Amino acid sequence: MTKPAQHSDQVLISRVLIVGGTHGNEFTGAYLIKKLEHYPALAHRASFETLTLFANPQAFAAKRRYIDKDLNRCFRRPDLQNLNLTSYEDLRAREIDRQFGAKGETPVNVIVDLHTTTSNMGLTVMVDDHPFNLRLAAHLKAVNPSVNVYALPESRRAAAGLPSICPFGCTIEVGPIAQSVLNAEIFQKTEALVHTVLDYLDQSNQGKNVSLDQPFTFYRHVGTIDYPRNGAGEIQAMVHPQLQFKDYQLLCPGDPLFLTFAGETLSYKASTPIYPVFINEAAYYEKGIAMCITEQQEMLI
Amino acid sequence: MTKPAQHSDQVLISRVLIVGGTHGNEFTGAYLIKKLEHYPALAHRASFETLTLFANPQAFAAKRRYIDKDLNRCFRRPDLQNLNLTSYEDLRAREIDRQFGAKGETPVNVIVDLHTTTSNMGLTVMVDDHPFNLRLAAHLKAVNPSVNVYALPESRRAAAGLPSICPFGCTIEVGPIAQSVLNAEIFQKTEALVHTVLDYLDQSNQGKNVSLDQPFTFYRHVGTIDYPRNGAGEIQAMVHPQLQFKDYQLLCPGDPLFLTFAGETLSYKASTPIYPVFINEAAYYEKGIAMCITEQQEMLI
Repeated sequence: MTKPAQHSDQVLISRVLIVGGTHGNEFTGAYLIKKLEHYPALAHRASFETLTLFANPQAFAAKRRYIDKDLNRCFRRPDLQNLNLTSYEDLRAREIDRQFGAKGETPVNVIVDLHTTTSNMGLTVMVDDHPFNLRLAAHLKAVNPSVNVYALPESRRAAAGLPSICPFGCTIEVGPIAQSVLNAEIFQKTEALVHTVLDYLDQSNQGKNVSLDQPFTFYRHVGTIDYPRNGAGEIQAMVHPQLQFKDYQLLCPGDPLFLTFAGETLSYKASTPIYPVFINEAAYYEKGIAMCITEQQEMLI
Repeated sequence: MTKPAQHSDQVLISRVLIVGGTHGNEFTGAYLIKKLEHYPALAHRASFETLTLFANPQAFAAKRRYIDKDLNRCFRRPDLQNLNLTSYEDLRAREIDRQFGAKGETPVNVIVDLHTTTSNMGLTVMVDDHPFNLRLAAHLKAVNPSVNVYALPESRRAAAGLPSICPFGCTIEVGPIAQSVLNAEIFQKTEALVHTVLDYLDQSNQGKNVSLDQPFTFYRHVGTIDYPRNGAGEIQAMVHPQLQFKDYQLLCPGDPLFLTFAGETLSYKASTPIYPVFINEAAYYEKGIAMCITEQQEMLI
């Protein structure tokens, strides 16, 4: 078990931003934002202001992840300051930062960014190591034990994602679901999770959050595995049928990893067991990622 | 039960075309064509020549269904003859017709076109009413009872799809699977079905096909249902959770059909039961189709 996260000073949340459509072909978040725009009272909480953002409307209209480049990789500070970057997503990232960033018109303390995945990630909450964010994730898992918590190594602020423009919050990844479709059950589960986040933040502002007396389990990102490829970069194998949809399940050395098109099984060769996640995510083929690998850890909050 | 299909005169098959990548983001067929190009002996049969076609390479490279328009709607004869149609897919359709059509360089008798879907269509074989094609479908179902046969009302030749350039064959639709991913199990099932088709055609050429003594069940297309939309065309509801993934299952009047974003269930209002298929196919949102509706029928072959 890792050492308990230090309790930071009380954080007072004044403005929360719920984001959908950061990837234009992930309909769950996009349509949830449309719903919250239509029924703003749903996202209202007494102790803070809730805003919504439909992040990449052109990509949504085109039913594509992005127009020119992945918007969720456009928020590194040097890139936001580099006016030579003029793709649609670079322009959009600067607009979003000017609106909601620390020096923006309506700076926000918390961002919840809504995504979907073709991987069997269930309801995944992705956070960095900040104690406030880990406590948020632990609380979400306490309310809904089916939630998986996936901890990233770099801080939100150092990352390239949209949430990096503010220190607190989480990215929600829900799957498996195909791109450019709505699945009512997944929509409702995502909606419920967003409301649990808002309720938690409201309680937190009121000093009502209690410590959890049980350690909570999470998965820490430690690396990625690519598909076997030929010299031209073409993939030579598929995720093995025994591994497909087995996100967050233990993979031991010798277990089947890939199946080549010729029918040969390639097994996992490393010396230590891992927990793979984002197995066979469609958008990661071009990023050289067949799956991410994590270690299971426990922590007292 | 519909009347038995008339046995047509013996059809001699001299050239078969296996097609994948007609939609660039349906990877199963695309990679199966790559495999057959790499191992051509796999598709070799004694009594005919087997060719392969990677139909829309630019859309595959872009990981999109199409570049300008749906290639599988570009093959109406007047469109193929209309040189004012100059989109990438229009040009590609004319190339394909010039290569493999009746007046082409290497005309084919049979086309098997490989597709995937986000709907739970299992292994679906789509055919028109020609007795040769119905017998092919019935045979595929006899070999693998999990195969679903979906009969379309218009003849292949009158349709706009790629297979319309020749009279015989079928379209294979496999799902559910997300766009732009490979699923090894679905890949292997599709591959096995293609080999069953080739084996059947080889037996057929040798006069070895026997009549099936049991009637076979298939689903005849009778129409489509769109999502509820507002005046701007935006969808107002999702496929109901109780209907999602229930392709080929009976839907009765009064059964849940859609769930609005506000949480209201909309039920199926017509007077007769139906069997919906292509429920929540991603590519059909833009075509105004939430699902296709079919009637279950039986036929002796």
